[in-house]
Amino acid sequence: MNVTVGRRTRHYRTVAFDARNNAVRLIDQRLLPHEFQIVSAPNFQETARAIQEMTVRGAGAIGATAAYGLAQGVRGFRGRDLEKFSRHADLVYQTLKAARPTAVDPVNAMNEVRSRMTQGGTIAEQQELALVAAEEFANNDVKHCEAIGRHGRSLIRDGMRILTHCNAGWLAFVDVGTATAPFYAAQAEGRKFHVFCDETRPRSQGATLTAWELAQQGIAHEIIADNAAGYLMQRAEIDLVIVGSDRTLGRTGEVANKVGTYTKAVLAERHNIPFYVAIPLSTIDWQLSSGRDIPIEERDEGEVLGAWGAVAGLEAQVSGARFGRRAYVRVANPTSRARNPGFDVTPAELITGIITPSGIFKPKELWANRRKLGYRE
Amino acid sequence: MNVTVGRRTRHYRTVAFDARNNAVRLIDQRLLPHEFQIVSAPNFQETARAIQEMTVRGAGAIGATAAYGLAQGVRGFRGRDLEKFSRHADLVYQTLKAARPTAVDPVNAMNEVRSRMTQGGTIAEQQELALVAAEEFANNDVKHCEAIGRHGRSLIRDGMRILTHCNAGWLAFVDVGTATAPFYAAQAEGRKFHVFCDETRPRSQGATLTAWELAQQGIAHEIIADNAAGYLMQRAEIDLVIVGSDRTLGRTGEVANKVGTYTKAVLAERHNIPFYVAIPLSTIDWQLSSGRDIPIEERDEGEVLGAWGAVAGLEAQVSGARFGRRAYVRVANPTSRARNPGFDVTPAELITGIITPSGIFKPKELWANRRKLGYRE
Repeated sequence: MNVTVGRRTRHYRTVAFDARNNAVRLIDQRLLPHEFQIVSAPNFQETARAIQEMTVRGAGAIGATAAYGLAQGVRGFRGRDLEKFSRHADLVYQTLKAARPTAVDPVNAMNEVRSRMTQGGTIAEQQELALVAAEEFANNDVKHCEAIGRHGRSLIRDGMRILTHCNAGWLAFVDVGTATAPFYAAQAEGRKFHVFCDETRPRSQGATLTAWELAQQGIAHEIIADNAAGYLMQRAEIDLVIVGSDRTLGRTGEVANKVGTYTKAVLAERHNIPFYVAIPLSTIDWQLSSGRDIPIEERDEGEVLGAWGAVAGLEAQVSGARFGRRAYVRVANPTSRARNPGFDVTPAELITGIITPSGIFKPKELWANRRKLGYRE
Repeated sequence: MNVTVGRRTRHYRTVAFDARNNAVRLIDQRLLPHEFQIVSAPNFQETARAIQEMTVRGAGAIGATAAYGLAQGVRGFRGRDLEKFSRHADLVYQTLKAARPTAVDPVNAMNEVRSRMTQGGTIAEQQELALVAAEEFANNDVKHCEAIGRHGRSLIRDGMRILTHCNAGWLAFVDVGTATAPFYAAQAEGRKFHVFCDETRPRSQGATLTAWELAQQGIAHEIIADNAAGYLMQRAEIDLVIVGSDRTLGRTGEVANKVGTYTKAVLAERHNIPFYVAIPLSTIDWQLSSGRDIPIEERDEGEVLGAWGAVAGLEAQVSGARFGRRAYVRVANPTSRARNPGFDVTPAELITGIITPSGIFKPKELWANRRKLGYRE
């Protein structure tokens, strides 16, 4: 999407590949919304680290990053032994996979790259095919998001007040986004609506990333504490909920997404508010048959015990810190600990519909429509 | 309760009166958990400001503060004209009432003080009676909290995992607290249990105040993001919820409490987890007949857009800031705005029981038991 920095407006993708330097280029999402900066990961280990430390985050974006990272890793191989090359490719694959164990996108993306790559006869051919496949993966991600926007925009009527949780915007994908795609498509048709962004503690992706995106695109919005959605629903101030998903089970319609999503679905059901999940096909897991089998990361407790932000009036003093004028404040009692599950699972019965690039489906209908949704035996 | 600062352990009340200096002494709750400091409000305007700016917060604590503030204000009157004295007393009353419009405790507390005060014939008698009544109000607050503990401790069995929201601890009252009173009473009987403290954005009273209290008293606890309670309930990791209340409607059993309470009640019902509200009698509103008539403050959006905390490694640099080494970080996108409702209302049907100093009642039984619960025609 377009980003305006100072007076300059330019189109950016969240993740791109710099073939000349064999580097993965990323918008550093930890600096947003206070700074807009592109970082370059010079090798696959750094790319894996960028995924793990959430320099890049979001289902599609980490998928594309892993795809590029695999291409980057195999392109970095020096030697002529095909077997050693294969072992190296395995190491790259496993390193990137381990960076975010809950997410299915990196695995799906890398499987696509690997299956195309291994059609090559020589090491050089495989290296080239890996990059071709990674680029295709990224381009398809954009096309899928655009298709989600075309299907989802009909849900948005003039004057609606829409809740979203976390960031399933273009920053979470290569471009356009999933939960935000209907917003951008409805806006393009001239519709007016208002978005409530859940802050989304502990990492506050709603207050930082989604709010930044919507502000950049000129969409009316307000940030709310995660605690406030129930109040707004009681007062009939929310008409529609659209969220994204880190993993959707094709067999059951269960949706794993940022922790707190389940809570919003429970509230929406109580208040008869339609609850939609927007997903790219790559997020569908056709294997698991129960949401309880989805591994849920317990993340660092420091995320819950404090917050990252810009320190007002302290720009000069904190310039030596790692994040420039950003600083971490310890909010919580210094002698207390925290639990920090990163995701939760929303059951199918709480979901009105799943917006995919191939249309909107009831969650229980995914399996019956699996051919259309990219399932391969 | 006891507070340990360095090697020194002493008993403190949250609010106390310094008769010699006609000053209200308060634990500055905005500095906790990073600093423990007593501040002195030298006149009723400053006492009102301390309520408004949440130097002191919590139902009982602001009740006692308003009671002391009214005594302080009338004791500060210089003159002999009884009519002027009455007008001055009204001004003090209205100033303190306006500091927190949602809360009923300051009003109830000041009504007690005023009705006792006006039994005095002279200005000097009224000034003295006001202070006597304020002290009695504060002492009764402590007795009520202890009684809540005696009734509520039977709900807590060994090994239980209990969720609480915001701070209805001793810092929210003169001492002991309401939601925490059963914890302290059960601990005194040797029971072992684990408390999950909702962070309670936007002001994080759970992560700061409740966690600090529990740590000071040696009760096992963990802080969680407000988003995480649903996940823990799904995994059967929460057995009981106990929260406080800013205003409970005696006629309907509806409970106004910190925003997010309603959400936890909805989740608890879905998972068949008992949901209790602990309240002192002063929090009961016998007038209103619908929760929709409770005025809900919309607080400053800065609370949602950022966070207060201690900046790691920046103690020296920020020492000139208002809060010493505490600093405010702007978390959210700088060009976005926020909505910030401070409270929500939980309907009676979601509440298992209301723990009062006079016993545990179903929310719908409050009215039938109104004589026992301090209702006066």
